[in-house]
Amino acid sequence: MASLSSLQRYRLTYKPKLPSDLQKLLFLVPEPIKATHANEHSKELLPLFPHTSQQPTIKFKLVDRPVTPKLLKLGVVLSGGQAAGGHNVISGIFDALKKFNPNNKLIGFLDGPNGIIKNQTIEITEELLSLYRNQGGFDIIGSGRTKIETPEQFIDAENTIKNLDLDGLVVIGGDDSNTNAAFLAEYFLEKGLKTKVIGVPKTIDGDLKNELIETSFGFDTACKIYSENIGNIHKDMLSAKKYYYFIKLMGRSASHITLECALQTHPNLTLIGEEILDKKLSLDDIIKEIADMVVMRAEKGKNYGTILICEGVIEFIPEIRQMILELNSLLAADKPHLAKLENTLLHKDKVEYICKQMSSTSSESFRKIPQYIQEQLLFDRDPHGNVQVSKIETERMILNLVEEELKKRKKHGKYSGKFAPQPLFYGYEGRSGLPSNFDSQYCYALGHLAALLIQSGATGCMCCIGQLTKPVEEWTIAGIPIYGMLHMEIREGKKKAVIQRSLVDLNGAVFTAFAVMRETWKFSDDFCCPGPIQFEGPAEITESIPMTLRLERKCDR
Amino acid sequence: MASLSSLQRYRLTYKPKLPSDLQKLLFLVPEPIKATHANEHSKELLPLFPHTSQQPTIKFKLVDRPVTPKLLKLGVVLSGGQAAGGHNVISGIFDALKKFNPNNKLIGFLDGPNGIIKNQTIEITEELLSLYRNQGGFDIIGSGRTKIETPEQFIDAENTIKNLDLDGLVVIGGDDSNTNAAFLAEYFLEKGLKTKVIGVPKTIDGDLKNELIETSFGFDTACKIYSENIGNIHKDMLSAKKYYYFIKLMGRSASHITLECALQTHPNLTLIGEEILDKKLSLDDIIKEIADMVVMRAEKGKNYGTILICEGVIEFIPEIRQMILELNSLLAADKPHLAKLENTLLHKDKVEYICKQMSSTSSESFRKIPQYIQEQLLFDRDPHGNVQVSKIETERMILNLVEEELKKRKKHGKYSGKFAPQPLFYGYEGRSGLPSNFDSQYCYALGHLAALLIQSGATGCMCCIGQLTKPVEEWTIAGIPIYGMLHMEIREGKKKAVIQRSLVDLNGAVFTAFAVMRETWKFSDDFCCPGPIQFEGPAEITESIPMTLRLERKCDR
Repeated sequence: MASLSSLQRYRLTYKPKLPSDLQKLLFLVPEPIKATHANEHSKELLPLFPHTSQQPTIKFKLVDRPVTPKLLKLGVVLSGGQAAGGHNVISGIFDALKKFNPNNKLIGFLDGPNGIIKNQTIEITEELLSLYRNQGGFDIIGSGRTKIETPEQFIDAENTIKNLDLDGLVVIGGDDSNTNAAFLAEYFLEKGLKTKVIGVPKTIDGDLKNELIETSFGFDTACKIYSENIGNIHKDMLSAKKYYYFIKLMGRSASHITLECALQTHPNLTLIGEEILDKKLSLDDIIKEIADMVVMRAEKGKNYGTILICEGVIEFIPEIRQMILELNSLLAADKPHLAKLENTLLHKDKVEYICKQMSSTSSESFRKIPQYIQEQLLFDRDPHGNVQVSKIETERMILNLVEEELKKRKKHGKYSGKFAPQPLFYGYEGRSGLPSNFDSQYCYALGHLAALLIQSGATGCMCCIGQLTKPVEEWTIAGIPIYGMLHMEIREGKKKAVIQRSLVDLNGAVFTAFAVMRETWKFSDDFCCPGPIQFEGPAEITESIPMTLRLERKCDR
Repeated sequence: MASLSSLQRYRLTYKPKLPSDLQKLLFLVPEPIKATHANEHSKELLPLFPHTSQQPTIKFKLVDRPVTPKLLKLGVVLSGGQAAGGHNVISGIFDALKKFNPNNKLIGFLDGPNGIIKNQTIEITEELLSLYRNQGGFDIIGSGRTKIETPEQFIDAENTIKNLDLDGLVVIGGDDSNTNAAFLAEYFLEKGLKTKVIGVPKTIDGDLKNELIETSFGFDTACKIYSENIGNIHKDMLSAKKYYYFIKLMGRSASHITLECALQTHPNLTLIGEEILDKKLSLDDIIKEIADMVVMRAEKGKNYGTILICEGVIEFIPEIRQMILELNSLLAADKPHLAKLENTLLHKDKVEYICKQMSSTSSESFRKIPQYIQEQLLFDRDPHGNVQVSKIETERMILNLVEEELKKRKKHGKYSGKFAPQPLFYGYEGRSGLPSNFDSQYCYALGHLAALLIQSGATGCMCCIGQLTKPVEEWTIAGIPIYGMLHMEIREGKKKAVIQRSLVDLNGAVFTAFAVMRETWKFSDDFCCPGPIQFEGPAEITESIPMTLRLERKCDR
């Protein structure tokens, strides 16, 4: 058992506020609203979800006398990467269950969905929870990335659920895990099991949201932690005036984190993957844009700055994506090229060899990237023989290429500044920090709602807390059928029913607000320093919500 | 002008508490206490400080009626790297000056000691200060690393001081800057100038302290920010159980930061430079110790962990220090070796060439280090031709060597775990964060004391706030002659009078406490997560002081 710091101990005693509705848990009865799920993929989706495709949206109304709740035994599982607030979802479920009936039980599955497959569990008790309330991390029961996908895994899950005699299962996870929840809900109905399945939207990446799901939990805390660090770097830079920081932030498939942190900290330049893809920018374009800025800032006597880089940037650059695809195909185990390369002595000969095999665009791209990235692309491959894109240090690569470009410009007398670059990556720091008051409260409410939905007989739903820009008391509650969020998509070569990931909308309010300000930020040093997350003090500071949420939901506070 | 975040704006309104003594500024009269400065270097030091070597320690006593203060015009300069609280030293001087006499003036020198040499100044006004109170960074007047060393520079400084008609100069800086303050005090007395010089102990590294100076400002905030990040990594690791983090922390010449962060966060292994030097550990010894731990943790099913690494670690390893010295000498501009190396095609031939020139121990060390570090050592050199030790990514080098060692052990069947390492460096994030309440208050008191000492006619003194483990009200105040802290040391080949840097005392209370606990931390996962700095809430959290200070001063709170 880990030691608890003073602040961790103090946060154990924090009581998250609850929406008014959830305060009156026993006086709520479900009010199903027929949902229409006609989307362009209905034809392919309907046969997959014969039972759950007609699920209604669940809203609630208050009644005069308390309802008599059933005795419930629920299971809960954490799925995928950590996000601040997971423990509060669990304590929210637990507290709601106990309010319904002190004899209700909550079972935690250990280490993610694998715990369901293998029936590895622990009972969640007040004693156990008392060490995890309002704490970061997922360590109370652990998490995991296993998916319940194969027929055998579904049977294992069914056996576990039957064995435990569960009335419901709460799946806390991202888009894939919630898709999985929808399939499980369908499967359990098909098998005639009583077990309801409810999803809770989790991901620091912020890409699990839609018209109804306003945000996923963990995004607020992660962005605040990254922005604290970026802000500190900004303040240091304003004093030292010495370095260019190339700061990579998490988020491979969407750039919400980078955009939110930009809005919070006002960096000089920000690379948003979705914009790169939309404008079909090449790596050269990006390097040129950064170098142009460095040159212009140098002319103003400013040889320092920050560039925020979304983790997935290179996969958003069309030419690089194409090059990686070609490399993956060329270096597959059944081809002779990898062995040839390994037997070639000089790096430049290796480059010549592989470039001859690639399309001219891809070979041109390959030649441009620094040697250590070339080596990584050729030899550092996952068990399937694919390039490990997540291991590529994009921030270093871009930094090195800008450095090269500036050297050229210097040689031609077009730049005379000093360029001292530093690569930084903020990632793991933000996933398990102490959850902000917002995430603590949002998650505690999500947990209550999950229990309420199961108590109300809903299944295949995601917990939806609405009006998040308003004070907690006014937050609304609903269960939204996951089915309605699904569409068909090619993933790893196969057409699959998945929840569509929310990407940065280049015409949306958030990107538009950013686009208006970024030109000012480029040269004016309008750096902002949000500072560390505060738990006590004026509400303006302690109850703040993400800028993304404020802008998307048109909130002035 | 940068934007201010909500928290930054809120902190502008924070009122640091003052020690009771400093609250009664106008009722204090100096009580000089004859100091004895006999140290082993007196013979060499005395001739350098004919006027200031006999300076007394200044204490203060309360009188019944207010003293009539002189009209004062003071200068203030920030010197060296940023440390949280610098702005509060300046606001402390300003507020004290205004309490003495509303007509007193404070002049800030721009961009460090260079501002003194060049007479570049700005008047500090309430209006200006109102944007910087309790803020991080040094941006109100900037800082710089220029030293006032040559006779010409002393004359320039004299001219500036005369031109501005300054009654006193406050030098806010580290050990070298305070040494500089002592020389300036002596010089001004020699020249018959009225200008008093007072030093303020600043450095995040924590190496400017002694029996009387309990700590330097900025150390508390920096260690709290690093520990927040390390703690977050710990919490994430406890959930993901996937990575080994090799975390480098600032502090090239002393390992106080690393030691303090270890005490706050309980990592599995900590490299303390002073211990490495004392035990004459080789790089092999260090790699073996880490690999042994990884193997033993793997046997317990734990394939994750944290290793804290002090920035200066490789300079503390005797064999590496020797190798760097030899390389610096071999690759000097007047020798043919660098050109030879540049004309050698293959890296392995370069290694052979340079190894032939080195001693056998050094060539053995050189062969062991990874290729990219070898390349850096050979070709990435400063304008004097020296290896840029600060640019070496020690955390990566150690990580790579441990990786190699584990591969060997795996081959021999002595290790079967998974090793997924991640390098991290926390440095610039910690220097300019919003100062903790402790640093805010300590600095505000230091500023008051600096003004009081000059008002009392002291010079060549460092501000000394004592009893820092007690509540602010009980803190004591004194001016300590810097002369008494000097000794003779070889720096860059020359014998110089300098303030001795405080290194980690391996027999002291702090290291002893750490040494008792570290074996437990190695295997038990006793990870601690201090969380973000809090400005409001229970005193236990908001008024906490560094563990180092508590242990050194035997404080229980």
